[in-house]
Amino acid sequence: MRSVNIGICGLGTVGAGVFNVLGRNSDKINARANCNITVTQVGARRDNANCDTSGVEVSRDIFDVTRHSDVDIIVELIGGTTVALDLVMSALENGKHVVTANKALMAAHGTEIFAVAQSRNLIVAFEAAVAGGIPIIKALREGLSANRINWLAGIINGTTNFILSEMDSKGRDFVDVLEEAQQKGYAEADPTFDVEGIDAAHKLVIMASLAFGLPISLEGIFTDGITRLEPQDVSYARQLGYAIKHLGIARQTAGGIELRVHPTLVPETCLMAGVNGVSNAVMVNADAVGTTLFYGPGAGSEPTASSVIADIVDVARTMGSSPESWVPALGCVPSAFRAKISWIFRI
Amino acid sequence: MRSVNIGICGLGTVGAGVFNVLGRNSDKINARANCNITVTQVGARRDNANCDTSGVEVSRDIFDVTRHSDVDIIVELIGGTTVALDLVMSALENGKHVVTANKALMAAHGTEIFAVAQSRNLIVAFEAAVAGGIPIIKALREGLSANRINWLAGIINGTTNFILSEMDSKGRDFVDVLEEAQQKGYAEADPTFDVEGIDAAHKLVIMASLAFGLPISLEGIFTDGITRLEPQDVSYARQLGYAIKHLGIARQTAGGIELRVHPTLVPETCLMAGVNGVSNAVMVNADAVGTTLFYGPGAGSEPTASSVIADIVDVARTMGSSPESWVPALGCVPSAFRAKISWIFRI
Repeated sequence: MRSVNIGICGLGTVGAGVFNVLGRNSDKINARANCNITVTQVGARRDNANCDTSGVEVSRDIFDVTRHSDVDIIVELIGGTTVALDLVMSALENGKHVVTANKALMAAHGTEIFAVAQSRNLIVAFEAAVAGGIPIIKALREGLSANRINWLAGIINGTTNFILSEMDSKGRDFVDVLEEAQQKGYAEADPTFDVEGIDAAHKLVIMASLAFGLPISLEGIFTDGITRLEPQDVSYARQLGYAIKHLGIARQTAGGIELRVHPTLVPETCLMAGVNGVSNAVMVNADAVGTTLFYGPGAGSEPTASSVIADIVDVARTMGSSPESWVPALGCVPSAFRAKISWIFRI
Repeated sequence: MRSVNIGICGLGTVGAGVFNVLGRNSDKINARANCNITVTQVGARRDNANCDTSGVEVSRDIFDVTRHSDVDIIVELIGGTTVALDLVMSALENGKHVVTANKALMAAHGTEIFAVAQSRNLIVAFEAAVAGGIPIIKALREGLSANRINWLAGIINGTTNFILSEMDSKGRDFVDVLEEAQQKGYAEADPTFDVEGIDAAHKLVIMASLAFGLPISLEGIFTDGITRLEPQDVSYARQLGYAIKHLGIARQTAGGIELRVHPTLVPETCLMAGVNGVSNAVMVNADAVGTTLFYGPGAGSEPTASSVIADIVDVARTMGSSPESWVPALGCVPSAFRAKISWIFRI
């Protein structure tokens, strides 16, 4: 079998997950990819006690990995939008395919990254950037390729869903649950990105770009968080037959594509109302298939690794053939982004 | 752009859906496939009033389509396991890729069909054979390719789920709901295949083949239907906090892969308990990702067409490169099929 060599940049929670799952399940993964996938290079500022990298060349300078001749695919897992952007561009300039879990990078710089990748006939894959272990990017890009998407709506931030679930099931205060979430590692020390809906907005534009063929842009998305919600709001909603869920919603309207992130009343009879804790779920409505839902863990070391490795396998399978169809923006749709609140989720 | 030519064999409910959606959404579909997908041939014993085939060559002999030089992909939508088998073999012998929605054919003759396809470097794709519009085959084959599957459990027959949902929500009798289902076209005049679990067993072995690398075989599957269930059974289950769902379950055990189809008590807190009517859902538990769920319409003209066309797009994208990894049985797992009843669905 031919070999495909991987360089992992970043050995934090997700990086260690990718390294360990690739090792543990190599028999299954290689059979499915029909090639030998080997981690030949790791770039990380420090070691990770959760993974044994003996036998692999570890560099303290991640850019060494992008330049290494023994690497076919660079896996970018350092996060952020500055060094990560340079790293991805360096990988592409050195003729490497890229797999990334970085939603902020895709949301902020996706368009320029894909332009460079396309000009060099290289793949940039990003399943893990949205909804952790759920293969939602693949579903939008391939599984539903026959359809015109009417709308999609997702619980795409595990932190806010955990907080709302606890407020709902136990009547707890927002601040109280947030502190627990921070202790458990579900929320950052500065939780703004999660609780104000910015992280969800990043994921929403990535999905909307695939679903509607939009160029990726964060401008004009109505974004509201969950910080003003109180236990009695959640309780009132229940009395009316609804769960409050923090949704990212993208919808085709007569005036263009509407993108918004906000707390929404979801009828208890809708499957989305039963998605609790740090889980994620994305509901997609399209002209041929009707309504589908994709549910699973929205974050975590091995769930995210599952999506990163699925991308690695796809790239390994595709290498050599033309990767043109990997570029997400499928023609430019004229779009007047509009920000509107529609508090009740109607399906 | 290059052209990919399609021959549709069978112009019933699903055939008309495929023909119509391919026409209606051709701009989106061609952009996603990065080629022009054109129906050049239709083989059907009679016309279908729901689709306008003027401008396309229609043959009354479906085998003419498999021999036609102007066809790259044969779409088999005639159903059954006799003529359909001859048709698929004829297509492969004539060097055509095959897309099929035929679960009975895949379950009964999948192994021999894939052997011929592999020897000729041709693709046989079958997303629509399981769970209608839900891209579950793609999820098992690609989206979760990093994982060892521990178990999967699915509501994979819309007829039985419709009957159980009506018995549950309205306290109706099995026979009463079955008659309504027959009138609505959800159930056949002879409902045995659906209500005795045979159809679900077909779909289960197809999924298990992909999930566990098993050769496809219908032998040794414990199969029980829903005909003995009475409204008070459903009601008792509710009192205990469960919904009764007819599940197909495949599980890795110490003794091999266990396959079974039977009514099961599903806790009300599990998302599967909220899947009602003719909808389908498949829950998959795997070592890296944890638990995921895939929900959507399990049958119908355009939902099934959505999956057929997703396969066409995939085959069109892949044509020219090696399709080896399309063969579902990924190495042979020693398997002692065991039939056991575990009435409570534990997750």
